[in-house]
Amino acid sequence: MVRKLQVAVSGLGRMGARHAINYLERTPRAELVAVCDPDPKAIAWAKTRLEPSGVTLYTSFDEMLAHPGIEAVIVAGITTEHAPQSIKAIKAGKHVLCEKPLSTDVDISQGVLDVAKQYPQLKVMTGFSRRFDQSYRNAWQKAEAGDIGRPVVFRSQTCDKYRDDDYFIGYSKTSGSIFVDASVHDIDLALWFFGANSIVKSVSAVGTCARYQGLKQHGDVDNGVGIVEFWGGKIAYFYACRMMAVGQHDMTEVIGTHGKLTINANPTHDLVEHHEASGIRREIAQTYWDRFEPAFVRESNEFTEACLDDGALPFRLAGAVQALKIGSALQESLRSGKKFLFDETGHPMGEKSAETAKL
Amino acid sequence: MVRKLQVAVSGLGRMGARHAINYLERTPRAELVAVCDPDPKAIAWAKTRLEPSGVTLYTSFDEMLAHPGIEAVIVAGITTEHAPQSIKAIKAGKHVLCEKPLSTDVDISQGVLDVAKQYPQLKVMTGFSRRFDQSYRNAWQKAEAGDIGRPVVFRSQTCDKYRDDDYFIGYSKTSGSIFVDASVHDIDLALWFFGANSIVKSVSAVGTCARYQGLKQHGDVDNGVGIVEFWGGKIAYFYACRMMAVGQHDMTEVIGTHGKLTINANPTHDLVEHHEASGIRREIAQTYWDRFEPAFVRESNEFTEACLDDGALPFRLAGAVQALKIGSALQESLRSGKKFLFDETGHPMGEKSAETAKL
Amino acid sequence: MVRKLQVAVSGLGRMGARHAINYLERTPRAELVAVCDPDPKAIAWAKTRLEPSGVTLYTSFDEMLAHPGIEAVIVAGITTEHAPQSIKAIKAGKHVLCEKPLSTDVDISQGVLDVAKQYPQLKVMTGFSRRFDQSYRNAWQKAEAGDIGRPVVFRSQTCDKYRDDDYFIGYSKTSGSIFVDASVHDIDLALWFFGANSIVKSVSAVGTCARYQGLKQHGDVDNGVGIVEFWGGKIAYFYACRMMAVGQHDMTEVIGTHGKLTINANPTHDLVEHHEASGIRREIAQTYWDRFEPAFVRESNEFTEACLDDGALPFRLAGAVQALKIGSALQESLRSGKKFLFDETGHPMGEKSAETAKL
Amino acid sequence: MVRKLQVAVSGLGRMGARHAINYLERTPRAELVAVCDPDPKAIAWAKTRLEPSGVTLYTSFDEMLAHPGIEAVIVAGITTEHAPQSIKAIKAGKHVLCEKPLSTDVDISQGVLDVAKQYPQLKVMTGFSRRFDQSYRNAWQKAEAGDIGRPVVFRSQTCDKYRDDDYFIGYSKTSGSIFVDASVHDIDLALWFFGANSIVKSVSAVGTCARYQGLKQHGDVDNGVGIVEFWGGKIAYFYACRMMAVGQHDMTEVIGTHGKLTINANPTHDLVEHHEASGIRREIAQTYWDRFEPAFVRESNEFTEACLDDGALPFRLAGAVQALKIGSALQESLRSGKKFLFDETGHPMGEKSAETAKL
Repeated sequence: MVRKLQVAVSGLGRMGARHAINYLERTPRAELVAVCDPDPKAIAWAKTRLEPSGVTLYTSFDEMLAHPGIEAVIVAGITTEHAPQSIKAIKAGKHVLCEKPLSTDVDISQGVLDVAKQYPQLKVMTGFSRRFDQSYRNAWQKAEAGDIGRPVVFRSQTCDKYRDDDYFIGYSKTSGSIFVDASVHDIDLALWFFGANSIVKSVSAVGTCARYQGLKQHGDVDNGVGIVEFWGGKIAYFYACRMMAVGQHDMTEVIGTHGKLTINANPTHDLVEHHEASGIRREIAQTYWDRFEPAFVRESNEFTEACLDDGALPFRLAGAVQALKIGSALQESLRSGKKFLFDETGHPMGEKSAETAKL
Repeated sequence: MVRKLQVAVSGLGRMGARHAINYLERTPRAELVAVCDPDPKAIAWAKTRLEPSGVTLYTSFDEMLAHPGIEAVIVAGITTEHAPQSIKAIKAGKHVLCEKPLSTDVDISQGVLDVAKQYPQLKVMTGFSRRFDQSYRNAWQKAEAGDIGRPVVFRSQTCDKYRDDDYFIGYSKTSGSIFVDASVHDIDLALWFFGANSIVKSVSAVGTCARYQGLKQHGDVDNGVGIVEFWGGKIAYFYACRMMAVGQHDMTEVIGTHGKLTINANPTHDLVEHHEASGIRREIAQTYWDRFEPAFVRESNEFTEACLDDGALPFRLAGAVQALKIGSALQESLRSGKKFLFDETGHPMGEKSAETAKL
Repeated sequence: MVRKLQVAVSGLGRMGARHAINYLERTPRAELVAVCDPDPKAIAWAKTRLEPSGVTLYTSFDEMLAHPGIEAVIVAGITTEHAPQSIKAIKAGKHVLCEKPLSTDVDISQGVLDVAKQYPQLKVMTGFSRRFDQSYRNAWQKAEAGDIGRPVVFRSQTCDKYRDDDYFIGYSKTSGSIFVDASVHDIDLALWFFGANSIVKSVSAVGTCARYQGLKQHGDVDNGVGIVEFWGGKIAYFYACRMMAVGQHDMTEVIGTHGKLTINANPTHDLVEHHEASGIRREIAQTYWDRFEPAFVRESNEFTEACLDDGALPFRLAGAVQALKIGSALQESLRSGKKFLFDETGHPMGEKSAETAKL
Repeated sequence: MVRKLQVAVSGLGRMGARHAINYLERTPRAELVAVCDPDPKAIAWAKTRLEPSGVTLYTSFDEMLAHPGIEAVIVAGITTEHAPQSIKAIKAGKHVLCEKPLSTDVDISQGVLDVAKQYPQLKVMTGFSRRFDQSYRNAWQKAEAGDIGRPVVFRSQTCDKYRDDDYFIGYSKTSGSIFVDASVHDIDLALWFFGANSIVKSVSAVGTCARYQGLKQHGDVDNGVGIVEFWGGKIAYFYACRMMAVGQHDMTEVIGTHGKLTINANPTHDLVEHHEASGIRREIAQTYWDRFEPAFVRESNEFTEACLDDGALPFRLAGAVQALKIGSALQESLRSGKKFLFDETGHPMGEKSAETAKL
């Protein structure tokens, strides 16, 4: 018989439930054997949807971790549990795929990284789904092949569709604010295209609350623009937004010395165009999941493959921590109105920058 | 002083007035010296708009033709006068640019051509505006340069925006029906890309009245599809429509053995896109003039240049007559439900095809 | 435990192997239990790829059909076996998904339909993959909701990428020529948007061999254009091509009285655009599979669901036979140079049309 | 006879010659009566191209200014002469259209503005051509009509095509560097969409020399990114580039609380698309003139109209000076690495910002 990776999923919220289904049905080399969630509603859902396929349900993470034969744990519950559960799972000898972010706190994230380093035989990854997107992969391969010369300027945006409720305000409390929650994806992509070892030279950001005044209480905004300068003449600039009318519009452009690549500059949900009296119209993805669902499936499969075959993960955990650090510095720049400078080793320069950590 | 072509315009209806303005203001090497129109309203307009710039106004074509110094006449009045006025002007030794069509009648059109042949020193042209469009020119140059190999299949459409009135029904009476009035442009383009000497092998067409039932009384339709096969393995197919919701969408694709060129497959009125809750939307040209205005200006200038410098016109009058003949055959095929076949000299084959003329 | 549909796949060629993988790994409610193929190479592949997952391998269709517990059979071997195997499977009480076409012969196809009618409890379907494509589904729902008024004109094309070998020439021998093999998809879509009960009024087609002269020996072409007129004022026109430079470009537009929908008018393989010195460039799907892979997965899942839950299939087998009949009539029109007419009951009219069957 | 504005053009370099032609041939209500240029080559060109149409040629600006009947002067010579000639012309009672920039020096520009204020009956304008572009006009009208709610974030870029020579290095010496020369257009647009009275809150910029190392000697870069924050929660961010492979790609997006407008997000030179083996490709404008030629013509006509009819100019001269000030602050931020802050009256805050002027 084919050997399948024995997987457990912690957390059956929106993303956790999707991970569970992906490991149950869309990851041929994996077998979902256990899930856990303290919420009775989540368990009720799992009773119908997962248990009949032989999945064991737990309300306790620790008990699930003790389920015999578990090889890998997907950590997808509430953000504050990401780091503690990841650390427990690593220490229990499990491979770990932890939903983004490890933590909104730089030090805690670094802590997970430090533990993971002690278990080099384990695969520990955080979920930067865009890394698994076919379009980003294609663009990266073109860039790597030299099609645009040397990448010099990187522009990337994460724009959520406007919601007619207070969701983003509540979300901001736990998500770590717009640059940490949303732009962190774009920062990670910048590090991918510019190289994981790129050293930050300066960070500055501004923002505004245009539709959700309640974000101010969390030091957050619904529109933020930031610039990250890297030593070696590379510039990344970012835009994050919580109020797009049209839908989820995450896009990137990579400008090289000899050409440019864009990813999703022209978003479209499918291949339909509607010619009507007011013009030609096409719809776009409404949610992150609409846009990146296939990337999540690929993530599950590649993580599984790396675990089973002791293969390399597509990116290092350290990069995720670095992206978080840069996102935090942008957020701090936004809050303070200051620009932070760093020397060629990434250490903060001057009193202004004392407020931010080493990058 | 710079010598300027002395131009007169016959007819100040919608197109005639535009021609007059183009020769007055947008054709530096021409001077508009006289216009004529029997309609008092047109004359009233000209009194305000043209006379102050020194243009002489006439109500009679013949009198205008006698205006001293006239070198070229733009024939742009009612369709039934196109041929007679063109012939008069040619016989009076004037260059002639006659609005399309010379006539809806094949024989009358041929008559103009026959007269023009007797005055080889005169420039006589009919207004196929798309020949002057920058995009069509660009595509043709690419095709001519071999960028798509040998053109094999040609698809072209003329689609007017729907009008909430009876305009198209009245228009059909004088315009010569959809294939003769609208598709004739596409047919002319096919002859341009395939070669003016292409010989028709077969013609067939179908159509329907979807929104303007009144067209039936004129043997006309508001949606027509036709195929013209040429000897030598070339195929052109056409679509004409009077009910597009979105606007004027005239487009063409030329499929060669080694590539394809499209012209206006993605219409747009300008460079604005609107991202709104229902999607991403852009507007397109609403009228023929919106789409082709710069082509009409170029037409005026190139015609003027050819007259002044005794240069070659960009296409031959004979081609316009041939396009009309093919359009008439398509219309006849639509009316009769029959497919017409032609031999390698363009003569109709079989009893069925006796109903159509030699192509 | 969850009940899973017990599936067998006949034929492990290119498409058969894909079906086998889809039922093995991408159809959660199905279990692939057996496959058959007479070719040792196919069996060798299956030994590595399928047998370890518990799939039983056969070289004989009949033996596979006798495998205990089989509930559904996917018929995906050589075209000439499609009808006989389908009939055997139906008579053995199995649900059947037969790859397109049932047969290139109209009567044989009708024969499968006749047998299927005797087993109304069985789900018998043929694989018109576009019916499962998200974009076509979206467009159809919009049309059904009245977004474009009443569909009047339908344009659709199937264009394969040029291959630098003789593949298409050999393929033509068994595939039943361009209108039967390629345009049949477009015809099926026309029947979907116009209604399954649409009655053909006329059929005419032309074509040419631009790159593969060898197709002539099979009465086939590499570029074909056809028009199908339906009673009730509806027109469908089709283009099929075997020599597209850019890739697989299958597209459709549906023109209604009040708007137009296009599907894949602007093909793109992913969301990357490349800005380089020669312009802005994007790549498109290279093969049918590139374009429609998700549709094939959805097909597997919906077929499975219909079988397990005794649900309705998304379209009727009779429609597939009707599409084949129309495709055959187009091919016959191409070969004979004749236009065929049909009365309002679909019976051929006049001597000309005696050569084609009742539609 | 029609009264025509009597126009003189100073400077017959690239832009000056275009202005001369525009006033000679494409501005019906204007008459080009005189030009001046000290360069014998320019005069030689004018002898052939302008003199035969009755234009008087001068080598001295002062002599041209004394030409009888001159009503308006187009100042289009070298940048250092823009301000002095404009001031002379204003004092001589002429309307003035001065090519951009009035000066690269903020104080000198302010000086022109101060003089102009003393002659309120004269029309004095600087050439922000994008203000006359049909697409920008259309977008602005939509924004003004409330189609996107309140504009909040403004992104705009000016990207020149890469040139395989040292042009940009030499040009940088006199043009006032990338934010002053290129981004000034984008800044002007931001002030248009956000309101001319928007007060700057902060300015920061970074940049790099990726292809033209020689720019460093002028404190300039070939890629610059800047953010301008305005009081009232409005953010503009800019990108300027001298090395685009594909061509001239100037684009803008305006993000409002309820929608977004983009201008030239999808650049295209015409309506042709080329389907070839490597993908679908379209060409874009190669130069600023390619992109904005019709806007320059509209500029000439609207300036003429305002002079003749004593109408309002489409924007105020003060705005041009403000755009220059912001561009200079961005450039100074780039050079110093500092972020500048301003209070709600536009005064610099803190020691850091002492280096920049009041905005």
